[in-house]
Amino acid sequence: MAKKNKSAISPTREQDYSGWYQEVVKASDMAENSPVRGCMVIKPWGYAIWENIMHQMDVMFKETGVKNAYFPLFIPLSYLEKEAEHVEGFAKECAVVTHHRLEKDGKGGLKPAGKLVEPLIVRPTSETIIGESMARWTSSYRDLPLLLNQWANVVRWEMRTRMFLRTSEFLWQEGHTAHATQMEAQDRTMLMLDVYTKFVENYLAMPVIRGRKTASERFPGAEDTTCIESMMQDKRALQAGTSHFLGQNFAKGSDIKFQNEEGEEGYAWTTSWGTSTRMIGGMIMVHSDDDGLVLPPRIAPTHVVILPIFKKGEDKRIIMESAHSLKDELEEKFFHERKVQVEIDDRDIGGARGWDWVKKGVPVRIELGPRDIEDNSVFMARRDEPSSKKQSKNRKEFIDQITKILDNIQDNLFNRAITHRKENTFEIDDKKAFYKLYKNTGGDKNGAFVMAHWCGSEKCEEKIKKELSVTIRCIPFDSPTEEGRCISCDNASSRRVLFAKAY
Amino acid sequence: MAKKNKSAISPTREQDYSGWYQEVVKASDMAENSPVRGCMVIKPWGYAIWENIMHQMDVMFKETGVKNAYFPLFIPLSYLEKEAEHVEGFAKECAVVTHHRLEKDGKGGLKPAGKLVEPLIVRPTSETIIGESMARWTSSYRDLPLLLNQWANVVRWEMRTRMFLRTSEFLWQEGHTAHATQMEAQDRTMLMLDVYTKFVENYLAMPVIRGRKTASERFPGAEDTTCIESMMQDKRALQAGTSHFLGQNFAKGSDIKFQNEEGEEGYAWTTSWGTSTRMIGGMIMVHSDDDGLVLPPRIAPTHVVILPIFKKGEDKRIIMESAHSLKDELEEKFFHERKVQVEIDDRDIGGARGWDWVKKGVPVRIELGPRDIEDNSVFMARRDEPSSKKQSKNRKEFIDQITKILDNIQDNLFNRAITHRKENTFEIDDKKAFYKLYKNTGGDKNGAFVMAHWCGSEKCEEKIKKELSVTIRCIPFDSPTEEGRCISCDNASSRRVLFAKAY
Repeated sequence: MAKKNKSAISPTREQDYSGWYQEVVKASDMAENSPVRGCMVIKPWGYAIWENIMHQMDVMFKETGVKNAYFPLFIPLSYLEKEAEHVEGFAKECAVVTHHRLEKDGKGGLKPAGKLVEPLIVRPTSETIIGESMARWTSSYRDLPLLLNQWANVVRWEMRTRMFLRTSEFLWQEGHTAHATQMEAQDRTMLMLDVYTKFVENYLAMPVIRGRKTASERFPGAEDTTCIESMMQDKRALQAGTSHFLGQNFAKGSDIKFQNEEGEEGYAWTTSWGTSTRMIGGMIMVHSDDDGLVLPPRIAPTHVVILPIFKKGEDKRIIMESAHSLKDELEEKFFHERKVQVEIDDRDIGGARGWDWVKKGVPVRIELGPRDIEDNSVFMARRDEPSSKKQSKNRKEFIDQITKILDNIQDNLFNRAITHRKENTFEIDDKKAFYKLYKNTGGDKNGAFVMAHWCGSEKCEEKIKKELSVTIRCIPFDSPTEEGRCISCDNASSRRVLFAKAY
Repeated sequence: MAKKNKSAISPTREQDYSGWYQEVVKASDMAENSPVRGCMVIKPWGYAIWENIMHQMDVMFKETGVKNAYFPLFIPLSYLEKEAEHVEGFAKECAVVTHHRLEKDGKGGLKPAGKLVEPLIVRPTSETIIGESMARWTSSYRDLPLLLNQWANVVRWEMRTRMFLRTSEFLWQEGHTAHATQMEAQDRTMLMLDVYTKFVENYLAMPVIRGRKTASERFPGAEDTTCIESMMQDKRALQAGTSHFLGQNFAKGSDIKFQNEEGEEGYAWTTSWGTSTRMIGGMIMVHSDDDGLVLPPRIAPTHVVILPIFKKGEDKRIIMESAHSLKDELEEKFFHERKVQVEIDDRDIGGARGWDWVKKGVPVRIELGPRDIEDNSVFMARRDEPSSKKQSKNRKEFIDQITKILDNIQDNLFNRAITHRKENTFEIDDKKAFYKLYKNTGGDKNGAFVMAHWCGSEKCEEKIKKELSVTIRCIPFDSPTEEGRCISCDNASSRRVLFAKAY
């Protein structure tokens, strides 16, 4: 399994980060581009990861009282027309259904027929149609809060796509809640950001910075957009989740009214919040290395792969029996409410076998040969450590320690990501240093996370974005009040904000 | 809670079965029609049932080695053109995407723009696109079997829709497998029919008849279509699941080739199998009554609802504490690998509260008032029994027996359905009797299940279909070889087949 001086993934991160990313996705067998422009096929390995993500988030949502529902795939054109802000956003690039039939075109092919009176849009989000339902379902304060979530596919036509990060069709969840009071809706906004934070940090092992967006980066119609931002290995930021307080704006647009206990009619206060398969792209870019995918154990479809080693002249059956009993014993253990998942790979394909599982990111690989069986030991490799650290372990001890080992890998990945972020986050007060850091000349191309002062003007924000392709990712909640001067205009500023290049 | 001589659902089954069905769906708060033609909104209660269905089936699929994956929502038009048979089937009525942008129409509205070079079809099934992937993934016998499943939404434009039973968009799962040998593919076809049978009978409590379709009712391209057919309360049949052996037809169409161990190239043998939210429609029509939905406990989102009874002058807190401790104790129990699910409904809305839960079909309702608490008892109503059978039970005994009670309700529903089917299934050998049974005049409008002889000719099948709207639902696997005369043409026949009107 030990190749030297050569990585399994080519190009490496250093050679071509973007090429490396695509190659990791491909080599891990997670997904591939489909013949349909902009759409990907999520293969079993990638989908199993998404299933684990969905399952865990769903449990966490339900613990807060959220219920799932399902709304139509299609949105009538008139719904988008009502919401002027949408036209500027999602609606610009979307899939438009104009016909409901196919008929023969007389040249051996087919052509669209049965023109619809009103075109339908394949949902870029279900916001408008959920709003319409909420309006129908809400008449009294007794009907509130409405705490809804939907797991579904959505479509936003994309010209340049990258698997998981940006595809025309993607899978996501969108939560929408309606409340009787402003306070309750604001609390819900933060509660869901907390859920996202816990999930992304504890399961995907991605440390995040929590904060609010500036006015210009806010979701259209939101009064407050909160987000979690994570640093990738190339030092760019990726937004892993977002939760919006919509005030009464959305309720007014969708006519979500109710009578309070005193019989007075008013608009509800709403929130929305979402995450998508994009998280998987983030997870890949935070943990993976030049040998391929590295999976946090808590989200890995398989925790342990057993690779039986067959030697010439030896009885295969004895080794396979030993492998199966090892699998059975491991699968009696629980790792964070899931059984420990074990696979045995007995394919006779030489060294490629071990590398397959390295590239797929399985946390623990076990080689099991005749000598190991004789010694009552196993030969263990951890995906978070270099292959050179492979070690022989007493079989019983290994079984007893498996959940500890997995926890240790999980923590190690998180801590590594924290260290990487710390090493690449700087407080900068000097404009020249700021510009040098982010300019191709003189600095790292992607720079770093920079905590710098900002006066609060959109003009300064825009200028930096235009000149450096750097945006304010968020105003971190834990950024203390502190006197300073804006990194762009030198005017007074009262707190630092987080700057970065972003995905 | 006890209304007399009046049912909660109007019209009743006898008055208007179809109207009753729509009303049960509405009154149970499972789903509603959406503003989008032919599409429904699945509300939290309905979606929770679908989640339970998905979860359980998914476990059963995975036990057989099936893995989930996700394929694009859109199918290029050319894919459907390739498969001539599709054009006659799904492709006739489907949603066609012709544009990928909206722009302002100059009249304050929006219009489609950015015409696509090739129109895209919203998947009516993912068959063609999964076939294309399978072809790419298969080169050697080592790559087989491929055992794939997808949970997704699909669209088939429908002019007349009924919630759950027939909607333009619906949720389903479609399984597709490819094998190296014919035998293996045939075994898989039957294995998945077995899974469906077990699920539908053991979880939805719907007894089914297993069999194969006649040539004319076969899935286009299939060499063998097997199915499970269930009798609704109106004596019509509903197909609850179907599993197809596709021979090498589909592999040839999609070019799924592989090299066997001897290095010879050949086409794979494939299967496909599917179930959908239609099953929920079937479940409703098998069990529900004139008071609304009746849920089999194994699929119910809530097993027990506790209704605290507040009497004037009494301390509400004492009752609520008692209700919560009852909930906690019940939730320590497991009912078929799920925790017993309990809800407390303390809304102060009078008798409507109890009826809400009757209409939602919750298996067990518990009233808990000051006297019950004093007596250490609970007042229990089972949804499968008339309200008049409500009974007081010792609290501890009730808790100890809860899983037994739920099992008993589950069995009772299944047995009731078996009895209903037995009472309405007849062997008929006389053509006049057969026609009388199914004609509006003289017989029950929907007749019954009839086991009758059929000579095997499509002409006879077609004639009966045309004259009576009765079809051969299947050739049951357990129908013994038996000499007889065709119910239509009086020619020789060697076994009986199942006739019925169908949904």
